Amino acid sequence: MRERVYLDWNATTPLRAEARAAMIAAMDVAGNPSSVHAEGRAARALVEKARAQVAAAVGCKPAEVVFTSGATEAAAVLRGFGAVVVEPTAHDCLMSQARAGQGVPVLGWGYANNETGVIAEAPVPEGPVMLDIVQAVGKVAFSFAWSGAEMAIVSAHKFGGPKGVGALIVRDGFEVPPVLTGGGQEMGRRAGTENIIGIAGMGAAAEAAARDLADGVWDQVAEFRNILETALSASANNTISVGKGGPRLPNTLNLIAPGWKGETQVMAMDLAGFAISAGSACSSGKVKASRVLTAMGFDEGLAAQAIRISLGPITTEEQVLHFADVWSAQYAKALARAA
Amino acid sequence: MRERVYLDWNATTPLRAEARAAMIAAMDVAGNPSSVHAEGRAARALVEKARAQVAAAVGCKPAEVVFTSGATEAAAVLRGFGAVVVEPTAHDCLMSQARAGQGVPVLGWGYANNETGVIAEAPVPEGPVMLDIVQAVGKVAFSFAWSGAEMAIVSAHKFGGPKGVGALIVRDGFEVPPVLTGGGQEMGRRAGTENIIGIAGMGAAAEAAARDLADGVWDQVAEFRNILETALSASANNTISVGKGGPRLPNTLNLIAPGWKGETQVMAMDLAGFAISAGSACSSGKVKASRVLTAMGFDEGLAAQAIRISLGPITTEEQVLHFADVWSAQYAKALARAA
Repeated sequence: MRERVYLDWNATTPLRAEARAAMIAAMDVAGNPSSVHAEGRAARALVEKARAQVAAAVGCKPAEVVFTSGATEAAAVLRGFGAVVVEPTAHDCLMSQARAGQGVPVLGWGYANNETGVIAEAPVPEGPVMLDIVQAVGKVAFSFAWSGAEMAIVSAHKFGGPKGVGALIVRDGFEVPPVLTGGGQEMGRRAGTENIIGIAGMGAAAEAAARDLADGVWDQVAEFRNILETALSASANNTISVGKGGPRLPNTLNLIAPGWKGETQVMAMDLAGFAISAGSACSSGKVKASRVLTAMGFDEGLAAQAIRISLGPITTEEQVLHFADVWSAQYAKALARAA
Repeated sequence: MRERVYLDWNATTPLRAEARAAMIAAMDVAGNPSSVHAEGRAARALVEKARAQVAAAVGCKPAEVVFTSGATEAAAVLRGFGAVVVEPTAHDCLMSQARAGQGVPVLGWGYANNETGVIAEAPVPEGPVMLDIVQAVGKVAFSFAWSGAEMAIVSAHKFGGPKGVGALIVRDGFEVPPVLTGGGQEMGRRAGTENIIGIAGMGAAAEAAARDLADGVWDQVAEFRNILETALSASANNTISVGKGGPRLPNTLNLIAPGWKGETQVMAMDLAGFAISAGSACSSGKVKASRVLTAMGFDEGLAAQAIRISLGPITTEEQVLHFADVWSAQYAKALARAA
């Protein structure tokens, strides 16, 4: 049997070896980071090491990193602001925070879209901004310090860290009302005993991701993505490659195949041994048109016929060509059935 | 050099071997549980296995378990209710949710106190209740189904699971407004990609903890706690053993040593090789009287002179006797210095 091919890296990534090793090492650290004794201080040291690693990867100060259970929790600080305006292609975790209200609105702004890979070009409007850099970290050069944003949200499992850990980046001096209250952890910005093992994994993954990015690993990924894009477009002349020509994440291909529903494509390709998605993982199971694509101007029909293929550093040229062969044959069959 | 002795199990516990193994196995499961493909379904299966394990350990239905980043996040659902009344010895994560407001108040109720080990005897008043069973799970018999409570909060790292994962238990049919919104995870009750590795560890730890409890492991722990209590009381005739005589957790000893500040005791014993605490770990660093003890009627002076010694299943009789020797000698010296 052929090995399965994982082409859903924007949904989540395999755990990096560096993260795995850091997590296993952290399993032996028994203390609670809030405890003042030696065991507590050892746990605290793991958290602070990871904080520096994450800060280096996103281009901020360590003190600007607040560890959370993921980007969704990080985005939830927006509930503490009077008014929140969210751009229409943003992830659900930002969109769910949009609300009218008093005061200067905070803007929820996607930096690199998880479904299309499209990187925002327009300058961020004035006023306090929360940038969604979940898909950008480790894949494209980014510096929080240079971004001008007040806040950013990060998720470890998008760059080879574990699921269930992330960070809210908060510019020095910008006040955020905590989502979780009780203990004084994270300088009072996030109560709750820290996910030591996960945080250690996130730190190690961030460091490894930053190194890979500097080493040009994603140039190769972009090349394979382009080969895939060319192969798919060549096999079916009516496909639409969303965001082609503009700045995009190096690993993402969002393809509309007119006449073939996205969910059906995902299931057909799953049976054939490939993991891809139709829209974001968080909204999977909801068989409907992509909100991101309709916001970009595609009609409901086309927006329901898109798939997201997202590659990683271990994806091979042979894998993407194999995908193109299988997908093209299945698409032809689907169109024949529909005819 | 003597090995260090860890007597701060109520702050956090070493990771159980079963949890460690489950977590390492989960590291190889790459999918996002929200994805519909095979990799996603494999991750989903890990979450559902753990849900059944946790449900069995706390005596509820699997569907009543909502995984969170810990008890603090679980307690935060209280923000969604109009009025919240919290009993005065409750943990900070409940206390921070207390508020006046409209509607039937929800009651935040500690079941077993983390500082004193005292188990609540009074019947829970009428009305919707959130029970803090964080310290009870795995140490004493408890059944959510029999408790009559609408909600309970659980933390994995108190029973040998990893830090940063926990659960909100919600009675079937009782509606709770989610703390985290965006994706549809946890049946819409908690958005955010699941902490697969942590959840797998929590499930395995819950199963092992329930087995240990059934095997009577804590009877032995209680015996060593009682030996320690007797030894400490014998060496200094003015100590107060908080909660002695009433129902208590089998592993917890809260001792007031008049004339010796709790924080000083913690530091002195840390230097001597023992990890203990003064109050809850979450409030460590704040050198002040224990709110729990003043709520029990102790004056500020005595409440600032308490330590919590909490044992675990691997604590030995030799360790507690060694602790008693060292502590008694240091207490005598401290009193001599003060005289």
